Amino acid sequence: MKQPLRDCRIGIIGLGLMGGSLALALQGKVKHLTGIDKDPATIATAISRKIIDQGQTRLTTALKPIDLIILAMPVMSIIETIPKLPSIVTEKTLVMDLGSTKRAVMDAFRALSQPMNTIGGHPMCGKASGGLINADANLYQSAAFALIKSDCAPPSSQRLAEALVTAVGARPLWMDADVHDRIAANVSHLPYLVSCALIESAEPAVADLIGPGYRSASRLAATPGAMMNHILETNQDQILIQLDVFIEKMDKIRSLVAAKDFDNLFTNLAKIRAKLADMLAVNERDW
Amino acid sequence: MKQPLRDCRIGIIGLGLMGGSLALALQGKVKHLTGIDKDPATIATAISRKIIDQGQTRLTTALKPIDLIILAMPVMSIIETIPKLPSIVTEKTLVMDLGSTKRAVMDAFRALSQPMNTIGGHPMCGKASGGLINADANLYQSAAFALIKSDCAPPSSQRLAEALVTAVGARPLWMDADVHDRIAANVSHLPYLVSCALIESAEPAVADLIGPGYRSASRLAATPGAMMNHILETNQDQILIQLDVFIEKMDKIRSLVAAKDFDNLFTNLAKIRAKLADMLAVNERDW
Repeated sequence: MKQPLRDCRIGIIGLGLMGGSLALALQGKVKHLTGIDKDPATIATAISRKIIDQGQTRLTTALKPIDLIILAMPVMSIIETIPKLPSIVTEKTLVMDLGSTKRAVMDAFRALSQPMNTIGGHPMCGKASGGLINADANLYQSAAFALIKSDCAPPSSQRLAEALVTAVGARPLWMDADVHDRIAANVSHLPYLVSCALIESAEPAVADLIGPGYRSASRLAATPGAMMNHILETNQDQILIQLDVFIEKMDKIRSLVAAKDFDNLFTNLAKIRAKLADMLAVNERDW
Repeated sequence: MKQPLRDCRIGIIGLGLMGGSLALALQGKVKHLTGIDKDPATIATAISRKIIDQGQTRLTTALKPIDLIILAMPVMSIIETIPKLPSIVTEKTLVMDLGSTKRAVMDAFRALSQPMNTIGGHPMCGKASGGLINADANLYQSAAFALIKSDCAPPSSQRLAEALVTAVGARPLWMDADVHDRIAANVSHLPYLVSCALIESAEPAVADLIGPGYRSASRLAATPGAMMNHILETNQDQILIQLDVFIEKMDKIRSLVAAKDFDNLFTNLAKIRAKLADMLAVNERDW
């Protein structure tokens, strides 16, 4: 099977921010787009805005002629959906997911009694506000898109997954599920919890005084629990490691402030500025 | 003295981001603008771009006919400049500053052998990149602008300070120097140090993977040391209190994660989301 993306019939399960944006970014680049979402109003909106060619509110055999299914729900919903897939998909169908943690999802695929043609995915992008209403055809543009191999996906499926990622403007990055989850804990789950602790520390009087810097530092705390809670539950061990690293850094800064050791504090902060500048230089093409 | 702002001759010492933006925002609203900056190139740029009417690189008696002087430098530079002012200003001249911490500045004013007509100020706004090149006439728009009374400033000077603040589009908020410094530690200095610890915790491999959320949470770490170091040195005691509050919140979150007590963790995070939403609702006019 060497099927180009433009000849593929695609199914997207979950038409929220990520699934809806994916559908928008795939407009005109695939043969057919089916959207599956449990909310009838979301399906109606997606059809009337021509985001999908066809829509349904339940997983049924109507999915059978589909070449590539993408699970675009929160992690725990993906894990609950995986056991329902074997009765719906054919052996040839490639099943991908966009879940924010990858080891728990890949384990759920592996736990199926019959091997399934699967590749894990995680686009490293998002928005403060979710839902189809905030979907954006450019959401994936220049974003890193982690891809996780499984034993059951042939090379042709790997090429199809890469074609999907590049078609929406993202950068495919193959990695192991465990490496992904460690990096995601460092770069996404830790900053979320740090922003939360910052908001928890906010004095009541400050609401009228906060400026762009504070809003920037704290905005991740607004990430919906419907998404974050699944991440915290399925990546608890990696997040705990990252929390310990961060708290150690905070304690070190606190010790220097407490000792009024400004020489060492300022040297440390200058190193951090240089590190951030280096990171942004690497990252700048999608800045 | 009931001098309206439009009849005032204004002097701004320091034509960086804050002083330059103030000069731009005051265009056409005052009688005359003198800019003082030790860098001749900055003065030349400010004159050629008509940001100021007149410029000089040193504090001299040429300042004498000025009604309102604004010190727009980092805190320690303001404190070093204050003892030089009595030989330059008249008794009628109102001296304001834009320093990021207020108690140390107000103490420096109070330490003068002759009382000076002074009001402390701190606009709660800024940008990731400093300098005149990044100055923006809209920088102060809708920002909270803390004002600190001194014993020596008559009511007419207080009204002039308020007129200046509203002329650039900001909101005057009178407060005590100590209250300001506590709030600033909570809303500005703590988030800076938290962003720094986040960058210090970053794994080497993540530079290619960071997305808008991470950049948002970490951008304060790029604040120039030339500004931040003065703040850390002059507000050490309040910052230490805020660091302890924050570390306690982080430790609590860590304990819940370590214990896999997701019920209490999710309840706590939901409260934080509600608190942030409330804060932003109050703050929304300048969101």
